[in-house]
Formats: sequence, C-alpha cells, structure tokens
Amino acid sequence: MARSTVLVASIAAISCTVLAASNFPNCTSGPLTNNSVCDTSLGEQDIEFSSRSNRGLADVRKDAVSRARALISIFTTTEKINATISTSPGVPRLGLPSYQWWSEGLHGVATSPGVSFSSGNGSDFSYSTSFPQPITLGATFDDDLVHAVASIISTEARAFSNAGRAGLDFWTPNINPFRDPRWGRGQETPGEDPYHLSSYVKSLLAGLEGTGDVEGNENGKYKKVVSTCKHFAGYDLESWNGNYRYQFDASISTQDLVEYYLPSFQACARDAKVGAFMCSYNAVNGVPTCADSWLLNDVLRGHWNWTGGDSDGFWVTSDCDAVQNIFLPHRWAPTREAAAAAALTAGTDLNCGTYYSHHLQGAYDQGLINETDLDTALTRLYASLVKLGYFDPADSQPYRSLGWDNVSTPQAQQLAYTAAVEGTVLLKNDNSTLPLNLDGKTVAVLGDWAAATTQMQGNYYGKAPYLHSPLYAAQQLLGTDSVIYSSGPGYGDPTTGDWDTIWEAVDAADVILYFGGIDTSTESEGMDRVNIGWTGMQLDVIGEIAKSGKPTVVVQLGGGQLDSSPIANNPGVGALLWAGYPGQDGGVAILDVITGKQAPAGRLPLTQYPADYIGSVPMTNMALRPDASIGFPGRTYRWYDGNAVFEFGYGLHYTSFAADLSLSAPASSFDISSLIANCTEEYLDLCPLSSVLVSITNTGNVTSDYSALLFLKGQFGPEPYPLKTLVSYGRVHNITSSGATQIDLKLNLGSLSRVEENGNRVLYPGSYSLVLDVEPGLANLNFTLEGVATILDEWPTAPANRTGSGTTEVPEGYFVGGYGSEDSGQVPLGS
Amino acid sequence: MARSTVLVASIAAISCTVLAASNFPNCTSGPLTNNSVCDTSLGEQDIEFSSRSNRGLADVRKDAVSRARALISIFTTTEKINATISTSPGVPRLGLPSYQWWSEGLHGVATSPGVSFSSGNGSDFSYSTSFPQPITLGATFDDDLVHAVASIISTEARAFSNAGRAGLDFWTPNINPFRDPRWGRGQETPGEDPYHLSSYVKSLLAGLEGTGDVEGNENGKYKKVVSTCKHFAGYDLESWNGNYRYQFDASISTQDLVEYYLPSFQACARDAKVGAFMCSYNAVNGVPTCADSWLLNDVLRGHWNWTGGDSDGFWVTSDCDAVQNIFLPHRWAPTREAAAAAALTAGTDLNCGTYYSHHLQGAYDQGLINETDLDTALTRLYASLVKLGYFDPADSQPYRSLGWDNVSTPQAQQLAYTAAVEGTVLLKNDNSTLPLNLDGKTVAVLGDWAAATTQMQGNYYGKAPYLHSPLYAAQQLLGTDSVIYSSGPGYGDPTTGDWDTIWEAVDAADVILYFGGIDTSTESEGMDRVNIGWTGMQLDVIGEIAKSGKPTVVVQLGGGQLDSSPIANNPGVGALLWAGYPGQDGGVAILDVITGKQAPAGRLPLTQYPADYIGSVPMTNMALRPDASIGFPGRTYRWYDGNAVFEFGYGLHYTSFAADLSLSAPASSFDISSLIANCTEEYLDLCPLSSVLVSITNTGNVTSDYSALLFLKGQFGPEPYPLKTLVSYGRVHNITSSGATQIDLKLNLGSLSRVEENGNRVLYPGSYSLVLDVEPGLANLNFTLEGVATILDEWPTAPANRTGSGTTEVPEGYFVGGYGSEDSGQVPLGS
Repeated sequence: MARSTVLVASIAAISCTVLAASNFPNCTSGPLTNNSVCDTSLGEQDIEFSSRSNRGLADVRKDAVSRARALISIFTTTEKINATISTSPGVPRLGLPSYQWWSEGLHGVATSPGVSFSSGNGSDFSYSTSFPQPITLGATFDDDLVHAVASIISTEARAFSNAGRAGLDFWTPNINPFRDPRWGRGQETPGEDPYHLSSYVKSLLAGLEGTGDVEGNENGKYKKVVSTCKHFAGYDLESWNGNYRYQFDASISTQDLVEYYLPSFQACARDAKVGAFMCSYNAVNGVPTCADSWLLNDVLRGHWNWTGGDSDGFWVTSDCDAVQNIFLPHRWAPTREAAAAAALTAGTDLNCGTYYSHHLQGAYDQGLINETDLDTALTRLYASLVKLGYFDPADSQPYRSLGWDNVSTPQAQQLAYTAAVEGTVLLKNDNSTLPLNLDGKTVAVLGDWAAATTQMQGNYYGKAPYLHSPLYAAQQLLGTDSVIYSSGPGYGDPTTGDWDTIWEAVDAADVILYFGGIDTSTESEGMDRVNIGWTGMQLDVIGEIAKSGKPTVVVQLGGGQLDSSPIANNPGVGALLWAGYPGQDGGVAILDVITGKQAPAGRLPLTQYPADYIGSVPMTNMALRPDASIGFPGRTYRWYDGNAVFEFGYGLHYTSFAADLSLSAPASSFDISSLIANCTEEYLDLCPLSSVLVSITNTGNVTSDYSALLFLKGQFGPEPYPLKTLVSYGRVHNITSSGATQIDLKLNLGSLSRVEENGNRVLYPGSYSLVLDVEPGLANLNFTLEGVATILDEWPTAPANRTGSGTTEVPEGYFVGGYGSEDSGQVPLGS
Repeated sequence: MARSTVLVASIAAISCTVLAASNFPNCTSGPLTNNSVCDTSLGEQDIEFSSRSNRGLADVRKDAVSRARALISIFTTTEKINATISTSPGVPRLGLPSYQWWSEGLHGVATSPGVSFSSGNGSDFSYSTSFPQPITLGATFDDDLVHAVASIISTEARAFSNAGRAGLDFWTPNINPFRDPRWGRGQETPGEDPYHLSSYVKSLLAGLEGTGDVEGNENGKYKKVVSTCKHFAGYDLESWNGNYRYQFDASISTQDLVEYYLPSFQACARDAKVGAFMCSYNAVNGVPTCADSWLLNDVLRGHWNWTGGDSDGFWVTSDCDAVQNIFLPHRWAPTREAAAAAALTAGTDLNCGTYYSHHLQGAYDQGLINETDLDTALTRLYASLVKLGYFDPADSQPYRSLGWDNVSTPQAQQLAYTAAVEGTVLLKNDNSTLPLNLDGKTVAVLGDWAAATTQMQGNYYGKAPYLHSPLYAAQQLLGTDSVIYSSGPGYGDPTTGDWDTIWEAVDAADVILYFGGIDTSTESEGMDRVNIGWTGMQLDVIGEIAKSGKPTVVVQLGGGQLDSSPIANNPGVGALLWAGYPGQDGGVAILDVITGKQAPAGRLPLTQYPADYIGSVPMTNMALRPDASIGFPGRTYRWYDGNAVFEFGYGLHYTSFAADLSLSAPASSFDISSLIANCTEEYLDLCPLSSVLVSITNTGNVTSDYSALLFLKGQFGPEPYPLKTLVSYGRVHNITSSGATQIDLKLNLGSLSRVEENGNRVLYPGSYSLVLDVEPGLANLNFTLEGVATILDEWPTAPANRTGSGTTEVPEGYFVGGYGSEDSGQVPLGS
C-alpha cells in the first residue's frame, strides 16, 4: 500500500497549471455555451461531496445523463449517426471537436489511433512508462502493485490527454481468461484463473479510473480515465486450423460461461463499475457478441446492474470492425444495414470502424432503428465524457493540470523495475545455483532475448524511456569486458550460421546465462501458436551449453508457456527462471534476481502443460472439464487431468517458509442460512465467510517476499469436482530471515460456491479444505458448511433459439473456415 | 525463340573488359600457382571443342575432378571440415578466398547471403531485373519465355559476381509441385502439374546454367552459374496444425513419389544435368532427406545417372540447418555428431549452417566418417567451381566480362513486362466487359494491391529498378486527375476506418478497378495459409462496389488461389483477372490487358478449389488420389473429384479460337514393341510416340496469343485412372483475327505411361484420347497402343527398414508437434 500513498502525494503536489486544451469542446463561446452540457452547476446541487456513497455517485450519473441529453438534442440525425464511430467527427458547427475514442494503455500509454508520441528523441511526450505485460503483472500476485501501476498509467494518460496527445478513453484491460496455451493474446491477460482475474481487475480499474487519488476529486466526481473491459465474451482464439476470430462461433455451456468466461467481466461491471465494455469478434452459441442483446442487455446491463437502469454513461464499443463482421464473415445478418441495426439495438453504442456511419442511415430509412436507439447510444457516450470533465472548465479539475512532469517520474521508473522483479518466477534451482555471485566472473549472455529491446514490451506498447536488456544489465554490473554476448537461435528460422559466436562465448565464460523462449513473432494478435514446445534449435543450443560444466542459467521469456521439461530435466542447467514480458527495466530486474540483489517470489499465473497437450485439445473446444470419451484432458489447473510440467501457482524461493492458517471467525462449522442472513452485501457471493489469517515465517537465510495463494478443495456441488480452486491470495514483502509476518486473506461465499449446469451459483453444505500454496501445501485448514444448498446468484437464462437471422446476400462459397464451428469438437486426437 | 536470339547477340557484343576479381582464387602468385587446380591446360587436350557431345562434356567433368582433387590434396583435415559449410572460410594460407555458396535468384538476382546490392539509389549494382514469380511464369505456359528470363537472370548474376557482389551458385529453382493450395511457398513454383514442372525446369536450367549462349563458350566448357534444384524431396509444407517443416515426416507412397513428387527432380538431374541439388527439411517415410542415402545416392546419383558414376562436380547442399534438424527436431540421429555424419555419408556435400564445421571433427574422431567421405564432398564442390571458371584466368572467359551494362537492359525490362502480360489469366468476362476503353473516363483504382510495390515481387526478391503498380500505370495512362486511388481492406486486420475513401472513389468514378487477394503476409516461407477463401472484409467491399452499376473489374493477386466464386457469381462484377506476383512492371502489364493493348492468354497453372476443400484435406496427407472412406477428395486436376471453381489450365481470351489436331506419324494405332525398338533415346520415357500438330485459327476479332494445352484421357494402367493428364503444351503468339498458325507439340512415351504401385513406369496397350484445351476441348484425337505392357523405367525400391536410428540424448518432452506423423492421415473431415 505504501506505493499507492506515494503516488497520491505525488499528484497532489503538482501545481494547477492549466494546459492548452483545444482538443476539448468550446463551452466558453459559441453554440454550446448556453447548452446544458456545459452547465457545471447542473449537477453540483445533487452531489454529496462529503462521501463517496452510492447515492452520491448515482447523482453524478444522473447529472451526466441530463447534460448529455441536452447536447444530443441539438444534433441532427445525420450528426448523430456520424457520432457513433470511434473516430468521431464531432459536430463542428456546434464547437464540438472531433474525438478519437480509441486509445490504448495495456501496460503503459500505448501507440494507438488516439495516442501520439512526439518524435523528438527524449523530447516532452516522446515516451511513457512501459510496465511489464499483464501476464508478468499477474505473476506478482500483488494487487496493490497492480493498483499502483494502473494509477501511474492513468496519470500519464491524463498528461498525454492534456497535451492533446491522447483521448480520455483507454481500451484496456483485456480480461478474457488465458484459456488455451496457444492463444496469441494471452500475454495481455494476468493468467488463466477467473478468481485471480477478478481480483486483479478490480485493483487495476480502481487505479485506472481513479478513486479519489488526487485532491479535489475525493468524491470521485471526475473519472481519471474511462477503461474498457474487453473482449466480452468468450474471445480467446485468433487463428486456429481455419478458425479465425472474426468468424469463430464459440460453443460454450452455460456452466462454463458463468464459472469461467464471465467472472472477470462481472467484476468489471457489477463490482468495479468500469466505464466501458467492448464486445468481441467472435460469436457465442450462434450470436456475434456485438449483436447479442441477451449478453449486452440482459446479462451486462441487467443482471450485473451495470447501468443501474437506463442509459447513464456506461457504454459498449465494438471491437474494431466487429459490427462489419456480423455481416461478413459471420453471415449472421442478412444485409449490411441489418448488421449495423442489430448491433445498435443489442446495445453496442460505439462502432470501432465505419459500419455505423456508412449503414445506419440505411437502417434508419428501412425502419430497422429509430431516433431513440441513436439517442440511447449517444447519451451513454457523452455522459461518459461529462464524467471525465470533458465539458467542464480545466481549472476546476485536478487531472487537467497533469503534464509532462508527471510522466516517467522516478517513482514510475522504480515501479516498472519492481513489477518486473515481482513477476519473475523461479522454476528450477538445483543445488542453489542461484543466486550467483558474478563478481570477477566472465559471463556469457546468450540467446535471442539477451539484447532484447521492444521484445520486452510484448504487444500494445508505447515508446519507453529506455529498454534495459539483460545484456545492458550485465554490462552495467560487470563492465563490458566481462560480458560476452551472442544472440542465438530465435523462435523463427534457423541460423546455426550465427552459432559459432555462442561456442566462443561458452568457451571463454565462467558463467552462462541464456535468455530465450518466444516473443510476438510467435504469439501475437491474429496469431495463435501451433506448438508449445521449445524449438529444436534452442534446445540444441541449450543442450550443448549444458555440457560445458559451467554454471548455467536459462531464462524463459514470452507470455504463453513452453514445455521446459527438457531444461528442467537437464542436470547441466542449474536454474530456470520465467519472466514473461518484463517491460522497460526487465533486463535489470532479471539480473538482480540472478545475482540475489532481489529474491524471486512470483508464481506462475498459468499452467505449463507438456508439449503434447495441444495434440488432444482442439483450440475450438471451449470446455474446461476433461472428457475421457474424446481423450480431452481438460483445461486449467482446476480441471486438467494430466501432469503439468509446472503447475499454476508454482514458484521457488531463495529461502524457505513455514506457515499457519486460522480463520478470523474461530469456528470449524458455519450455518449457510446464518451466513446469508448476516450478510450486508448487495450481492450474496460477496458475503464474507471469514477472513483467513496466514502467519508466515521465513525459515531460511534470505530476505524474501512471499505470495500467499490459498486453494480450496472438497467434494460439493455438481460433479465432476475441480481438483482445487484459488479462493484468495496476497503478497507480503521483505520477510527477513527468521522473521514472521501475517496476511489477512478475504474469503467470500462466492469463492466457496459452485456453478450448476443452468448457471446458478450455489453454496452447498459440505466439508471444505483450505490449502496454502501448491502441492503439498504449507498449511491446511478444514471447516464445514451446514444447512441446505442455497442459490447465491440466479442466472438469467439465454433465450432458447439464439441462432442467426438467416443467410445473407453473399453468394455461396465466399468463406469457409477449414473446420466449421459445427465440427469444433471433432479434432484429431494425438498420441 | 526470337527473344533468346536477341539475348545471345546482346551478350556476344560486349567487349571483354575484365573486371577486378579479388573474390577469385589467386592462381597467379602464391601457393596455388603450381597446384593443378590452377592448370587450365590440364583438360584442354581432352576436350573436343568442335561439338557439345556427351563425350566432350564428360571430359570437362573428368578434368574438373582432377583439378579439384589436386586442390583438396593440400588441405589439412581441419581445413576440409571448415570447407563443408555454405559460408566457406576458404584456405587463406593457400590463397583460396572465402566463398559464400548461398546466393538466390528465384526470379531475378535476389537478396541473400551471397548477394549484396549497392546502397546508393540508382547506382551501379543497386538493382537487378525483377521478373514475375514462377507461379506467374508458370501461367504463361511459354517455355521459350522461361528460357529467356533465366538467361537474363544468369547474365545479371554473372555481372554481380564479377563485381564481387554475388557468388556463382544460385539456390534456385524451387521445383516441388504445388501440391496443397495452402502452401506458403507454392508461389515459388510454376504450379501443380509434374509434366508442366519438368518441361518448365529444363528450359529454365538451360537459361540459368548457360548452353552456348555466348561466344567462346559454345562447347559449354564454362557453366554460366550453377543452379540448385530444391527441395529434394516431398517438401511442400511450412507449418500446419503443429506440423513444422523442420520435423515433418512426409508419408508418401512409392507410386505417388514417382508419379508426382519426383518427375521435376528427375528432369533436373537426369535430363538437364543441373549442377546442384538441395535436400530438404522434412523426412520422407521416416528418413530426413539429407540423411537419406537411398534418395541421394541410389535415386539421384544412381538411378538418374546424375553424376555418371564417381564424384564429379555435382553436389548436394542441405537446406539451411537441415543437418541440425536431423538431430533436433527430427530426433533421427542419436547425437549431433551422428547427425552430421549421417548427412555427409548419405551424400549431402555442403551444409548450409554450421553443424558440419562444428560436429564433423567429433564424428571423425568417433570414426563415423573418414577422410574419403570429406574428400568426396569437397571434390564435388570444387570441381563445380572449376567448371564455373573459378580457378581460370578471367580473360579466357566470356562470362567474366559481364558488367553493370548487362544488368536491367532495355531487353530485360521489356521481357519482365512481357512475362507479366503472358502470365495474366482472364477468369471471367461477362458481356465482354474487357477490354475497357478508359479514354476520358474517371477510374477508381482500389484495393490493397492497387499501389503495390514489393508486394508484386512475392518472396526471394532483389531490389528492382522500378516497381510499377496498377495505380502508377493508370496515372501514366490517364493522368493523375482521372485516377482516384484508395487502398482498402487488406488480408490482415480489418480497417473499415479507411473505407470512406473507397465509397467516395466509387461515387466519383466511371469505372472501378479493384486489386486484391493475398500476399506474403498470408502465404510465405514458414507460413501456410489456413483459409483459401477471400476475407469477409474484401468480399464485403467488392460486394458493395458491385452494386454501383458501373463497370467493375476485380484483379486477384497472390500465388495461392482463392475461391473466387462469390466474385464470379456476382453479376455486378464484369470481369475477373488473376496475375499472381507479376514483378517489376506488373501494374503496367495488367492495365495493358485491361485496356486491350495486350490480350490475355495465360492459363491457371493450378486448381482453384472451393473454399471448403481444405476442410476435408489435411495438409499432412500426401496422397493424390481421392479416398471416399475418409472423405478425401484427392489433389490436383488429375484426381480431385469435386468441382473446381476454376480448373487447371483455365483461361479466357478476348477472341475465340478453332483448332485441329493431327499426328506427325499419320497413324491411329502404334505397336509398343516397335516404338521402343525404334527409339534412340537413352531413356525410354523420352522416346517419341509422334508429335502432335495443332492448327489454330483465330475466329474472333482480337489479335491474341494462344496457349495450347494438350491433355490425355483414357483407361489404361492401374486403377484408379486420372481424370486427365497434361502431356504437352506450347504457346503461339499474336494470331491475328482470322489468322491461323500451327504448333508442333512433342508427345513422348513417358507422357503416355502410368506408374504402378511399385514405382515402375509402364506403357500399357489401350485406347488413348488427346484433348486440346480444358473442357469441353477445342479438338480431339484418338489412337491406340497395341502389344504388351512394357516397363519404361524400373524403380529402385527403397530398403525395407528405413526408420530412424533411435532416440536421441534429448530428454523426454522437448518437442511434440500437435499431430504426429503417425496421425497425419487422421484429421477432422469438414462438412
């Protein structure tokens, strides 16, 4: 928490210099002056500044809606239609400037249509802090750190916005669970577990959208930025075996949908009240999500109470051209106009693309949409901008005074480093190879990642202030004369022609550090992997290096896991680390872990499967549970029935720990009806059972963080039962040798519940076991729930017939995936 | 033939200015001076200059071998080992310079390790002629043109070599048949048909390696360059469903191997005596080809009589790192040393990579290879250089006087244009939409390819003197004011944000030209396609354009075919052209076809399958014949049992033709034993049956070329019978309206034969039908063969047990393809 406090102070301290803001509407002269959208007094009277209660926030919302309606009331129909796309032209005659809704900020303000970095090297706004990718942030299991990272991203975003170099809407986070190890965009997520994602995203969104982290905004009147939870829903396939994200129809059972695919989105909408959602390219059970009124209206706005009723400043954008895709290649709507109308009336308020601006007029003329449909969407969009202070005077808004001085501060740089350290996972450490004292040693720094620059950023990145590679870090530490560098085989085409320098380096070195794995040439947007093993080229090099008899460390990089068993099993490789995409200071962070300046305490946020796993798992099979009848081994640590190479949550330390668990409610049995009767939460799944007090002692010799992962086991609810389930986690810092500390982990009824086939979330009586850490566990605790099975959340069932609206005007044969969605369950099952 | 003649004259006319040649060995001073390798008199006495008889060439060979042996005899063992890799260090102590064996020249001198363009814009050696890709050259069905193109490539190659900017060895052509429409490198080949490939490659190699096309070399003493037929064999998969080229084990029946996969290589080795071969990444029937002694020694050197016995200057290189791949990921050899030794002793003389230099010493020490193995390989390599004149004085060699004046000559530029014109195929022309008179019209030039530059070159390209896009051509023709350009959806991520300019262009234009399809972002080395349909994005745009009611032409580009049925079936699209990768002047060529300055007469060199074809065809299934039991529809026009969208050989004209067929031997029946008894050819399959005289009359109004494709039909030999088989072809030029011409097509016994399951090529008695052109055919001719079935070529059966040599030292689990080769026949069969 210390970090967040520092950040608040940092922002509060800045002077309120108001920056030029020609990119904001003209509320001081011209046509809008007397429009209520510019009337900041409108809502003041209703707002309780003294608290951030629901009541106060609801009033802010209502106010924002009134102001937005006033604005839209003076639009012509054509102007309304023009304003439904992400590159909004605004309404010049009204003094409403053009606005780019699409800015990116996945792990730092990022290059995107709405963001422009200055070109001068080192000049103002020529860079932003580039944190590790979410997959590495996920490995920290440190939500406070995630919050601090997000707060810096939104501070820098505002600074860019104030300079006319960014919008106020950032299309992040990607919070689809990392379901299949091949997914090219899994790197953008914090991992495979829905509880982890939900907890992570709430901290992240608080940091991004701002919750009173600056003086003058304690009531949360102004959003810092508006975030966009994406991709809603069931999107986690780019291209597999002829199935493209643009046409893929994900067949998902209601049980899996509620249990696995939606919890992170529920956390965004219901719990964090994120400002925006993005519907996805794919269809779910026959309906493209951007045309799915059930998903966008019944579930998102209704069941999750996202909007609190009517349109109120919470909006949904399509993924870029996902509206077009409803026509082609989904062929779900019979005409282009019908596709646009279906999306708008289903609740897709904004179209990234031009299908709305090009075809909504036709849809309007055909009676497929009406004025109210347009008004609903635009009210949501402009009310959102009202809440961002877009129409308010700059000098009344603390965020409007942020500037270049608030970008890439020393605190931000330090945090980028810390995040990379915390996200590093130690997978193997034979005979305590690590930490390595490199003083006076000659070190070979090898591999495709050794001199990484933008590689360390993964995707959706901006310009970083610096990119410190492992090679840079080694040279800073030891001097250039003591470091011998050679690249080596990458993941792509072979290059043994460059290997000679590797052998020379190995011969000359005392210690060998190999940095390899995969990068965005293999896993990226549009590109799923087709292999999850290391390449023969890299294993060949590593295998030969390991014969040298010299201390050898391998660092595995990239977001998706590789089967590292050949490295783990090779006695010549002393240690194996995983670091994902570690960001701007990744090389220094990794070297500091290697030398022991920092101790590793990250945990794998996803399962490392054996390489042959994908041979029996079609990417299009969305099921989680194993199915022996088709040789399907299941997905994620909760269901996978094989032996993981390294399991979810795995991570070694330079020290050892002992632990003890106890409940804050000192009971071994709980009555379900009492738990519910005593609950004051709006949603039953958020009711506490108790908190779990984890007492941790460092029984080794090295000061170290400890990431406390609490798993639940037991046989309750519908069969089959998961092997175990993450139900709470937290990270404690810097426990000294023989030192002890405690962490209080929340345990809610939702975490204990199971989801039935109909989607209802139910709390069952039964025997429950809590286990701290991965097998065999550091500590255990058992309790029982008594009483009758009780529904915590009743799921709004989807309409029975949700198939498409018929064939389109497109001639036969225009597009066929190699394997249609009907066949998605039928795939070759490998040996 | 006119073109070739012009070229010879052009080269002969240049003065014999000898260029600086520090990249050649020092034969005038230093240690080599008195070595026989520098003794040009050694062979003179044996060579008959008066003729290019086999006897004369054999003596040149013998001489080259003697000279190479003399050189190698003074190498140390270490120097020999060092000289086995493509980046050869040479032997500095002997005055033998380093030599880069790897230059590329697929369709022009191309960027590669051995080739360096100068950097100055327009400076000497800053560019070379960039012809269309082979897939477009294949569509010309004009072997004389192919010969002329190849002659220019090798002339320019020599000019670059003389300037120290290229080697003498060019790793082209890629002559694997284009078996599967997804193959990313199919663009590098002339198409899917083995007869076509064989005929094409003989013309190509004659042009590349040079056969007396310059004064002073009439006897063929000096090779112009050494070409490399690749990839031997069964290589036509980059990455499919977890199967990578580096580890794929192609399971190929003997019948398919002989009938389909090997004929083009037989043409290279046995008939054209190409200077070099390249073994491939993949295995065939369990053995990585570079370790396959049966394939490299028994078949290539033995059965095909490539080397005429001992090592004689014909060598095999591994594909780059294919030797390494024998160890990993093939895991065929148990150790690195065993992998290197297996390749060398199997007949892989050169290693692109460093596995030989790094591991042959170990193999030598372990007794896995001996001095003779090294000497055999090096003798082949250096004898090849002797034949290139590498050790001979420059002033004795005509090719050594070629220089920058011989690069990108007006003739070369004209030929690049002509090749693109000839390779353009007209697939649809409703109501004679084409040719279009564009005078005074405003033309919209749209699509991802409209402003193509390097896109037009495909892959393996060099720097072109210019890259004339369709947009450039239209602007040159009509002036910039009459041309409205917009890009449009590419094959990759969607961008409807850019579509507004398309609609503006469509509204403003009188005529609409759309240039789209695919490019190397979708089909490339390492990347097979996963879809053979047009993207929804492109079809959506084309579909809207087609509603405009204005003349609309679509040009499909890219090497692999797309299912164009939605375009063919759309009445709003008047015409459809295919042009592949048309090279440096592609835009001008296409525009000239559109306007009628040129008439189209290209033919599809491959089948355009419907988009759902790949749903029932695993790329790993190497079979050609259909198999109803697994829903496999077969491959290529010879076997595919479905309805092609456009069949192999399809191509419309601006005019109409009538034709008549007759045999030069005026008979309707032939006796097999007489045919064979009267044959004077060394190989029976090359014996003539007769030639077929094709009389063609232009019955329409437009002067046009005509590509005469002669197909064979009939039921003879083993069942099942192919639907038809291309047995001869040729192209006649510029037949005027009502004009007539004749072309004499050769018809050999090999073309009439069938291959049995044991690989024997057999001529059967039976009823044979010849059909000119695609269905329904322009003319027919029937004849019978009498007598008994007779073997034309007895196949050397592979040893029974050809599985790998056991598990390697690599630990378990290091690498597993998604679907192992054992499962290659088991795939999901689409609907």
